Amino acid sequence: MADKIVDRLALIGIGLIGSSIARVVRRDGLAGHVAVQTRRPETLERARSLDLGDSYTTDAADAVRDADLVIVCVPVGASGAVAEAIAPALKTGAIVSDVGSTKTSVIAQMAPHIPPGVRLVPAHPIAGTEHSGPDAGFADLFRNRWCLITPPEGTDETAVDLVTRFWTACGANTDIMTPDHHDMVLAITSHVPHLIAYNIVGTAAELEEVTNSEVMKFSAGGFRDFTRIAASDPTMWRDVFLNNREAVLEMLGRFTEDLTALQRAIRWGDGDALFDLFTRTRAIRRGIIEYGQETEAPDFGRSPGAGKPAQKPE
Amino acid sequence: MADKIVDRLALIGIGLIGSSIARVVRRDGLAGHVAVQTRRPETLERARSLDLGDSYTTDAADAVRDADLVIVCVPVGASGAVAEAIAPALKTGAIVSDVGSTKTSVIAQMAPHIPPGVRLVPAHPIAGTEHSGPDAGFADLFRNRWCLITPPEGTDETAVDLVTRFWTACGANTDIMTPDHHDMVLAITSHVPHLIAYNIVGTAAELEEVTNSEVMKFSAGGFRDFTRIAASDPTMWRDVFLNNREAVLEMLGRFTEDLTALQRAIRWGDGDALFDLFTRTRAIRRGIIEYGQETEAPDFGRSPGAGKPAQKPE
Repeated sequence: MADKIVDRLALIGIGLIGSSIARVVRRDGLAGHVAVQTRRPETLERARSLDLGDSYTTDAADAVRDADLVIVCVPVGASGAVAEAIAPALKTGAIVSDVGSTKTSVIAQMAPHIPPGVRLVPAHPIAGTEHSGPDAGFADLFRNRWCLITPPEGTDETAVDLVTRFWTACGANTDIMTPDHHDMVLAITSHVPHLIAYNIVGTAAELEEVTNSEVMKFSAGGFRDFTRIAASDPTMWRDVFLNNREAVLEMLGRFTEDLTALQRAIRWGDGDALFDLFTRTRAIRRGIIEYGQETEAPDFGRSPGAGKPAQKPE
Repeated sequence: MADKIVDRLALIGIGLIGSSIARVVRRDGLAGHVAVQTRRPETLERARSLDLGDSYTTDAADAVRDADLVIVCVPVGASGAVAEAIAPALKTGAIVSDVGSTKTSVIAQMAPHIPPGVRLVPAHPIAGTEHSGPDAGFADLFRNRWCLITPPEGTDETAVDLVTRFWTACGANTDIMTPDHHDMVLAITSHVPHLIAYNIVGTAAELEEVTNSEVMKFSAGGFRDFTRIAASDPTMWRDVFLNNREAVLEMLGRFTEDLTALQRAIRWGDGDALFDLFTRTRAIRRGIIEYGQETEAPDFGRSPGAGKPAQKPE
């Protein structure tokens, strides 16, 4: 068990990320009190029956009163409204953090509402699954994953230190980065991958030549891998693309340029260009495994024959 | 244990697929004799030490002599040369099959060499991992996966039945399809997904704004999923793209059109269009799970904290 990091923690939003924080904090005693807030009464009741907190409310201002650390765990498009709602109730000395996948937009939305004497320390744990809601969280979600902390210039060092210690205690590795650079890094490592996964699943679903049942039955050749991230929470991801537009469009432009070159290589039968790319890309996966961010097991360690017994073809 | 399907089986090529066939055939007694052939003496020795066959040779004609069923398990670009090499040694009544990911090209390459009295029954088990070579195979690779059988028009029904029974005994579900339709289906369910995975990994590796070590460390946000299929065998995949050019370019065109529309939605802040797509794509994954082709476990069942303990950042 790690040491207690804060007396009173408030979680605004209790989905996959918020509920995972709640679970690791309570398992390891990282906070004296966990106040859980979410807007929908049904979700709050679910959080209560999962025993995720010490107190429960649908009122964000109520939840943050007396909190030492507030972590906002909502889709990034809601960050500004949350900051506005909690601002009057924040105590002097409190730290406000978040878990959003975009950082410049979150800071632009939240900073204007943060009262003097309260420190804003945005953060982004790079962890998740394709499931969402309070039932989807688990205490080990952040173990061995990276949490990027992106303090605006001039942020109080002690507040940054506390947020760093908090995430380390949750099992994460931490790094500090400017919000701009974060948004560029995540555009290529997360946002554009999600976009092209959503896109190919959409393309496949709308073909006339190939039926949806063919797409689903014969997906083990590669397509099914893409459907995992294309099953991620629609609200969260809509907000990501609307809130990291510049970096996403920039990285998408690079992707499309490269894809055009590859298309040309296929059209002209340039096998050497294809072979050369397909050889270079292997090294990146080896690097990810060496950095401890991926299993070495083939096929993600999926069990052979993964899935239920086959249905009869219609 | 299933019944014996053939007396003598010849495997031409003993990589991931060939060695997986060898393993399930020997485990379940599906053939009286398994003749293993591969060109490289080191690979043949490896196959021998793994006990994959009853006889071993580097000479394809030697391997197929007296075989009832010959399964060619080589990159699709080598199909014609293999057919030419084995043709003089095939016995009357033999069945020649393959496992290639493209079918019209394989038939065009092989059919002209097949002697009268020998039946060509092309097939494609939709199964694999990102690893290659005889060590990468395992007996359960085909369990609960689909094997598509694509006989050219007029193929002897009894030969198609035997190949169907063979793959069923290997644990696969089978379907019969025209070679043209196969190539269109696989273009969207396998070839284009591989192409865009290779492409984004290549794009990420060559950015100046984001270092390779950042790409690798912070890949858990989605990118790492793409690196698995982008680590697939380069020779096999070069051949796939060169041998299914028309269907791949057609499906890639659809993908690019849709991506352009999505890019526009991001540029103009059309959140409803994004949300609508991101909602529809969830249904496809549910379908794949219902068809028994994917695990229900979140994150492919990857264990939390998957990977070795984190390295120190450089």
